[in-house]
Amino acid sequence: SLALRSETRASDFSSFVARTNTCGELRSAHVGQEVALCGWIQYQRQGLFLVLRDFQGLIQIIIPQDEAHSHVKKVLYDAPVESVVRVTGTVISRPSGQENPRMPTGDIEVKVKTAEVLNSCKKLPFEIKDFIKKSEALRMQYRYLDLRSFQMQHNLRLRSQMVMRMREYLCNLHGFVDVETPTLFKRTPGGAKEFVVPSREPGRFYCLPQSPQQFKQLLMIGGLDRYFQVARCYRDEGSKPDRQPEFTQIDIEMSFVDQAGIQRLIEGLLQYSWPNERGTITTPFPSMSYAEALAEYGTDKPDTRFDMKITDVSDVFRSVEIRFVQNALLKSQGTVKAICIPQGARYLQNKDLESLKESAKSQFNQEVLHLILKPDGTLKSLLSKFLREEHQLEIIRALKVQADDVVLLAAGEHKKVCSVLGKLRLESANLLESRGLVLRDPTAFHFLQVELESAPHPFTAPHPSDTSLLYSDPGKVRSQHYDLVLNGNEIGGGSIRIHNAEQQRFVLEAVLKEDPELLSHLLEALECGAPPHGGIALGLDRLICLVVGAPSIRDVIAFPKSFKGHDLMSNTPDYITPEELEPYHIQVAWPAAEAKANKN
Amino acid sequence: SLALRSETRASDFSSFVARTNTCGELRSAHVGQEVALCGWIQYQRQGLFLVLRDFQGLIQIIIPQDEAHSHVKKVLYDAPVESVVRVTGTVISRPSGQENPRMPTGDIEVKVKTAEVLNSCKKLPFEIKDFIKKSEALRMQYRYLDLRSFQMQHNLRLRSQMVMRMREYLCNLHGFVDVETPTLFKRTPGGAKEFVVPSREPGRFYCLPQSPQQFKQLLMIGGLDRYFQVARCYRDEGSKPDRQPEFTQIDIEMSFVDQAGIQRLIEGLLQYSWPNERGTITTPFPSMSYAEALAEYGTDKPDTRFDMKITDVSDVFRSVEIRFVQNALLKSQGTVKAICIPQGARYLQNKDLESLKESAKSQFNQEVLHLILKPDGTLKSLLSKFLREEHQLEIIRALKVQADDVVLLAAGEHKKVCSVLGKLRLESANLLESRGLVLRDPTAFHFLQVELESAPHPFTAPHPSDTSLLYSDPGKVRSQHYDLVLNGNEIGGGSIRIHNAEQQRFVLEAVLKEDPELLSHLLEALECGAPPHGGIALGLDRLICLVVGAPSIRDVIAFPKSFKGHDLMSNTPDYITPEELEPYHIQVAWPAAEAKANKN
Repeated sequence: SLALRSETRASDFSSFVARTNTCGELRSAHVGQEVALCGWIQYQRQGLFLVLRDFQGLIQIIIPQDEAHSHVKKVLYDAPVESVVRVTGTVISRPSGQENPRMPTGDIEVKVKTAEVLNSCKKLPFEIKDFIKKSEALRMQYRYLDLRSFQMQHNLRLRSQMVMRMREYLCNLHGFVDVETPTLFKRTPGGAKEFVVPSREPGRFYCLPQSPQQFKQLLMIGGLDRYFQVARCYRDEGSKPDRQPEFTQIDIEMSFVDQAGIQRLIEGLLQYSWPNERGTITTPFPSMSYAEALAEYGTDKPDTRFDMKITDVSDVFRSVEIRFVQNALLKSQGTVKAICIPQGARYLQNKDLESLKESAKSQFNQEVLHLILKPDGTLKSLLSKFLREEHQLEIIRALKVQADDVVLLAAGEHKKVCSVLGKLRLESANLLESRGLVLRDPTAFHFLQVELESAPHPFTAPHPSDTSLLYSDPGKVRSQHYDLVLNGNEIGGGSIRIHNAEQQRFVLEAVLKEDPELLSHLLEALECGAPPHGGIALGLDRLICLVVGAPSIRDVIAFPKSFKGHDLMSNTPDYITPEELEPYHIQVAWPAAEAKANKN
Repeated sequence: SLALRSETRASDFSSFVARTNTCGELRSAHVGQEVALCGWIQYQRQGLFLVLRDFQGLIQIIIPQDEAHSHVKKVLYDAPVESVVRVTGTVISRPSGQENPRMPTGDIEVKVKTAEVLNSCKKLPFEIKDFIKKSEALRMQYRYLDLRSFQMQHNLRLRSQMVMRMREYLCNLHGFVDVETPTLFKRTPGGAKEFVVPSREPGRFYCLPQSPQQFKQLLMIGGLDRYFQVARCYRDEGSKPDRQPEFTQIDIEMSFVDQAGIQRLIEGLLQYSWPNERGTITTPFPSMSYAEALAEYGTDKPDTRFDMKITDVSDVFRSVEIRFVQNALLKSQGTVKAICIPQGARYLQNKDLESLKESAKSQFNQEVLHLILKPDGTLKSLLSKFLREEHQLEIIRALKVQADDVVLLAAGEHKKVCSVLGKLRLESANLLESRGLVLRDPTAFHFLQVELESAPHPFTAPHPSDTSLLYSDPGKVRSQHYDLVLNGNEIGGGSIRIHNAEQQRFVLEAVLKEDPELLSHLLEALECGAPPHGGIALGLDRLICLVVGAPSIRDVIAFPKSFKGHDLMSNTPDYITPEELEPYHIQVAWPAAEAKANKN
């Protein structure tokens, strides 16, 4: 069943419509009941029985064979697969021994009395069975058929229910106000990724904003106190895999709150809305500074579901006479670091190790060496001859290396080496898992709060103790911003905002070198009694994607765009006529014409 | 209090933040409690006391006068009005006789211990007091200040709570799935009012759709069964009063439903979500055919809160020898009709009557005559000499005319005369009410379903019994469409959709003369097992506007656009540079350049 919670199981799915029950809900308890069902023909066998499907599941329908019901038999026999039918009949137990324990309705079947084809189906471009692998382009072109799959039905229903639970938490339990903010707005500073929308006034454009950031702050200044919105946002990034030109964020802002308050809110929100079928999540979420995340995981969004942490072995190597290592250690922030791939020698082949090292070389221009701990306790490596036994033992101890583990080692500047090893950590984990070693519990959900110490952001307030530093050495200011990470994916970012007009103007002008004119309304608003405030935005598509374990956010969006921003079903975006552009005082600058104009 | 229901009264408004209570919630029961409050200084008197305000209301704060608290006194004395402060202190009873019964917190006050100015307010462009009339342009420019008013806080909070109740009804009680559909889509047939959004591919544009119509139908074809969305919609109508370029509709679609089912759903939805403070609404809603609505109220959206129905007096006038009346009656659909304005002679002046008649003349080119029933029982009118006593009595009886009532009379074609008198019915009602006669109970909410008998709509299914007529005489087909009317305003429209591909193609091509190519994906989808389905869309902005009794939908939208489509706060839409347009391969066709191009 797709129902996730007791609240929704109590929903009446058959109110207002021409059925008594859904196909998927019938059980032994219904035996003897007269029912009317509507659904799609999943398959039909020789006029004897068929399987009817609706969003809740499948039910077996027994077609009567007696003369009095010959019309019913003919109707159901002639209807193509995926035709929509309405049947009435009686729920009966399946004959003993014919129960199907793998089917939730497998103990019963429906003996049909009447049948009506509501719409006949023409030939389909592909079969509606979950086990048939379809190309994604085909799924997108016929999205309305793809939506009939168990997985898409499950994903969209879980999304709806999880968002509903979030609304209950925010609106009913904590007094948040759901406010809709405009999507036809003006360009924001640095808003190069904003779609433009021409107005009927020559040369004047709206922009589709990347988030309701300004509006949520203005709502706080307007005394709304606590705001949330399931907000449609827009970002024109051209072609980027697994990004969408329009996406949804759970947008939250509160007055008189500090960073700890926002963290407690978001923990409570996720705990309350978490689907039962995905277990429970524990709070508070662990927290980590950006420096720790970088040093141990080589990224600002650590996947803490598995270990393989980056280990600093600089001290071991200080007394090892290897030229390139010594050169690296002598540089500013010079370090030697390593990760240990468990059972790497058994699960990875030589070409895997070469490919990992090649990846470091091509993406970071960083040399990486590998060491293998042989069952006899010695380290096999190009470096072996330079490493005395005590060094080898120190490395083994520091990284807790066991027999058949592989150590990847890199020397260089701290941040670069961390980034390289962080990348290789994920790549080698993926490799190990593709070879059958389970590193990450697929049912585990690891939330993590990463405190971003100095992220220059136009609206983020500095740490109270660093306020004066803002004017003297803005690069060193710690900001009150953190990212929320789930299983190694950034799913949200929260911060305390600047509520002082003068500080906001300084950050825009002096620190970020942006034109404050575009934000004059916000600067003016901050002068009119702006309360201290802060908030967070959660990326809903990504969150749901992780909760349902889908391979792409396209699997949790009803009608997603392709990675080129196209809707393959309707051929969007499409050409329109010059006449249709006329009211907007724009014309297409065709590339040929542009080239010509540039020459002149 | 702004809290509307028991569910929301239980909300914890002080979780996560630096206060123990809201200003507006304190009562005698809190006496003796230590509280921390955050809010805005409403006013302050001579360092003795001040009134602090938050979204829930006002509280009186007593400033300590002793030396030990001189710092607190100075802080609060120096803070300008509308500054944001945090105070701690003790709730105490007001001295006997000093209670303020008009203030919900009027029995108590807070004796301050500590005070902190969180943000000081500079001079405001206008005072934040509800009784000060502000020009709407000024309110829009400083919307963040306008939002602090009691009325705007109330409107936005009621909106949020009513929508939340709708979600509970749909999602939790009836198993609807909240699905977000794209707003970057392609042009729809007849979509002249759609904003265009250039893509990065030369000449290709997205459009912002006027409704999720196609997507909701595709979701039904995709087996979602019951869908709803609080959907952002877009309509570029240039300058139209009380319309917004972006607006919100409660968008609902169900499979296997008939028109009665949708009506029951919408009645249940509105009854469930109706705010307690606005009384209760009774269901089922009355229903009326379009023909009845036109004949009795002269409009497709009758305001049934008052009588003054249009009455046909053709039979009376058949034997009256007045040339223009006889001419009118001889024509096809020729009629004589009238409305009776109660107490018109007492409340309306001659110039009012002239202005009503002038309105009929200028808007409809229709002559209207008036008759006044004098206390002596005779009708005073230009027609009097042509009307025998029996005619006069018949008119008086037909329209139930009483002394001092005014009858407005028009002769001509049925539909035109109805429309004229429907318009005058509303205008004269407004006139009477502006003079102090209460015709409409301001607390009454009259819902009405108007069955539209032949509205040509691309997706609306014909009445089952008229299906064959569709191909022979489409103009006569009754469609399965109805409008939902509240107090004379259309707030929604519902219909059963076409689910047959061949019928849909015929309607598009042969009846509406639209290019079916733009809808090829929908036509193809209808061939793949589309269930019968139908739905409704409610205009949320208008509905909330009527519920709260606001003069304009701009009063129930946080950041509305002006009637010219401008955001006056941020100067939107705004000019952007040619460089910013370059990635979209468009350029501005300035009117001068356009004019020149047209000459060539």
